[in-house]
Amino acid sequence: MKDFFRDPAPVAEQSLPKGFKFASTACGLKKSGKPDLALITSDSAAVAAAVFTTNRVKAAPVLVSQEHIKESGGVARAIIANSGNANCATGAKGIATSRATAAAVARELRCPQNQVLVCSTGVIGLPLETDKLLSAVPSLVTSQSGTAATYESAARAIMTTDARPKWATASYRTGGKEVRLLGCAKGAGMIHPQMATMLAFVVTDATLTCRFAAHLLRDITARTFNTVSVDGDTSTNDTLILLANGASGAQPVRSGRPDLQRFTRALESVCCALALAIVSDGEGASHVAEIEVRGAPSDHIAARIARTIALSPLVKTAIAGADPNWGRILAAAGAASLPQGLSFDTSRAEIRLAGITVCRHAQAHPFDESAAHQKMLERHVPILVDFKSGRGRATVWTSDFTEEYVRINASYRS
Amino acid sequence: MKDFFRDPAPVAEQSLPKGFKFASTACGLKKSGKPDLALITSDSAAVAAAVFTTNRVKAAPVLVSQEHIKESGGVARAIIANSGNANCATGAKGIATSRATAAAVARELRCPQNQVLVCSTGVIGLPLETDKLLSAVPSLVTSQSGTAATYESAARAIMTTDARPKWATASYRTGGKEVRLLGCAKGAGMIHPQMATMLAFVVTDATLTCRFAAHLLRDITARTFNTVSVDGDTSTNDTLILLANGASGAQPVRSGRPDLQRFTRALESVCCALALAIVSDGEGASHVAEIEVRGAPSDHIAARIARTIALSPLVKTAIAGADPNWGRILAAAGAASLPQGLSFDTSRAEIRLAGITVCRHAQAHPFDESAAHQKMLERHVPILVDFKSGRGRATVWTSDFTEEYVRINASYRS
Repeated sequence: MKDFFRDPAPVAEQSLPKGFKFASTACGLKKSGKPDLALITSDSAAVAAAVFTTNRVKAAPVLVSQEHIKESGGVARAIIANSGNANCATGAKGIATSRATAAAVARELRCPQNQVLVCSTGVIGLPLETDKLLSAVPSLVTSQSGTAATYESAARAIMTTDARPKWATASYRTGGKEVRLLGCAKGAGMIHPQMATMLAFVVTDATLTCRFAAHLLRDITARTFNTVSVDGDTSTNDTLILLANGASGAQPVRSGRPDLQRFTRALESVCCALALAIVSDGEGASHVAEIEVRGAPSDHIAARIARTIALSPLVKTAIAGADPNWGRILAAAGAASLPQGLSFDTSRAEIRLAGITVCRHAQAHPFDESAAHQKMLERHVPILVDFKSGRGRATVWTSDFTEEYVRINASYRS
Repeated sequence: MKDFFRDPAPVAEQSLPKGFKFASTACGLKKSGKPDLALITSDSAAVAAAVFTTNRVKAAPVLVSQEHIKESGGVARAIIANSGNANCATGAKGIATSRATAAAVARELRCPQNQVLVCSTGVIGLPLETDKLLSAVPSLVTSQSGTAATYESAARAIMTTDARPKWATASYRTGGKEVRLLGCAKGAGMIHPQMATMLAFVVTDATLTCRFAAHLLRDITARTFNTVSVDGDTSTNDTLILLANGASGAQPVRSGRPDLQRFTRALESVCCALALAIVSDGEGASHVAEIEVRGAPSDHIAARIARTIALSPLVKTAIAGADPNWGRILAAAGAASLPQGLSFDTSRAEIRLAGITVCRHAQAHPFDESAAHQKMLERHVPILVDFKSGRGRATVWTSDFTEEYVRINASYRS
């Protein structure tokens, strides 16, 4: 909680999962000349699971990576990711570029092309300069190494409007073996829960089966990445990939085994840390709001309401101004579109803003305005809405809406 | 179209419907001391139809007015509306205040209490000072008059963060009689299509039946007020009221009669003008975007997509920056949540931005960036998305997202 709005602690060498290498370079896609190409490889074929965007408009690398995961049966050697260009809305040429990039990496690694996953992030609709990418691949592969410094550089190479790099680690011991997880992510705009948000890559030397990995990743995504929202915009490129190469030598993680809980907890902590890092690096964000809805008729209804509050520009601007304007929260809660017949009585609603009760029985509850304002100046603003109408609950994390958000997005391409 | 961002032309005396009077005053609800109470009365009992907010959290005046319309069978003598306080989330006391206000007006007019409709707009959650309201009513009623100047003052008295007053007129001749319509509205924030938006009052001396008026108003709301969006926030107080007193002496407007089309067209033109005035007065707005979706599998799908584009903060900030960033429009279109099984192929999508084709077959179409930027500096920005996948079409109007929007809303109450 204290780490919002700060760079993550450096990656310790001993927290690197075994059997992975990393590399990055500036291949010229970013006008700034900053690094824009990252590579993550596993020394051996790793179990690969992924969650992709739900947007009907899918970028070329999403289509190609979906195809590769399917063809390979959930096995991969490498992830190659570029920033600076999303390779989206680029038609057949864009698909060809993503395929050629995977092929170039596969050639260097001497593995099947479908064991290379491809990701892109950046501006939509500009042709991706294939030559720049392809000519950078051989030296990128040669330069790989398994050090924390190269990992951190790779995590920085996928940044676009991100102010800070994002990574997280976790580990546990089992049967005398150490199992490690290491994840990185990018994402500062077009961030919204209805999907696997942004780019995020988690590597682990745990031993997993393909089916189990796919199932677990979907499950954890729902509880982590899908509970954050920056702007409600669902990107065309969002991809979360998990690679598990078994190099720890630990027993396979499977249902019914004692390691299941340990691994699940470790993966969830990495995904959760990355998801929160994305929110606190939301474009122009000055606050992170944790919106908890309780006492709704069901978890599903609680989630709908929490998301509607998190998307409300009026709520998000009030948070930016540290304004304890709970009326906007109540109005947004009431506006959430619920499936027919699932409406319910909101007259018992209670609202706590930054720990201060501001509304009871859906009416003003006397509070010290200036004390509330002071509390809301803190960067983490917890908001609790309790409908006292059931056991349904949900939490959504969101950033606030600042003038800086508008400045960033009104001039992104110019 | 040319009149965006300007005050409306003064109301001409001859465009006032017969048999209505108006009044306004400053009763002390607004800290600024500006007028905050408006009264519209019909000399005789008028047919009254209304559309109210769909928000589950409904303000006291909405609940009371809904009750009155029901009890009276759709007949009213007066509308009393205050600004400066929404009388929402104020519990039983708030309801009592709205009832007492209606009763005070009814007493002066010597009509049943349920023939007075009550509206409030302003901050949510503060108790409405009943005494100030009630003590202002007698002199308010005494001061009424049927002049254009008093009407304009009344229209100004319902403003909150509105930069400009909003009114519109229409008329037509039938059987030697002149029928007139006159409408006013307020609304600059919490404006979103899923409802009858904001406060709007239309009075006419046409002769209507109650059932017909209610049906027609719902119908026209769908085509006018429900196609505009400022911020996607659905207010707790939104109310649109139509009063028709028959004072023109014209034949009743009914289905099957030749006047039906004339009256419908006139009412639609007034509602449309008011709806567009609300968008162009959106908080901080510098542009009005007209988002037209064509070639969708159905009108319903086209409307969902048009609304998703209109709500996208990334699209709205690009419009503020006059940035021809069509990729965000395509991404927002792809993100629209459609009922299961209603997804469709978006690969034929064509986008025209301010008249310039920027995307064909869902890919970049070469265009002159600086020419497009110049065109987008104009205050009306038409955006056309044609999916070439059917005959479904819809249009939504929205304002852009500017730094000024954030400034207004991050400091509203402080």
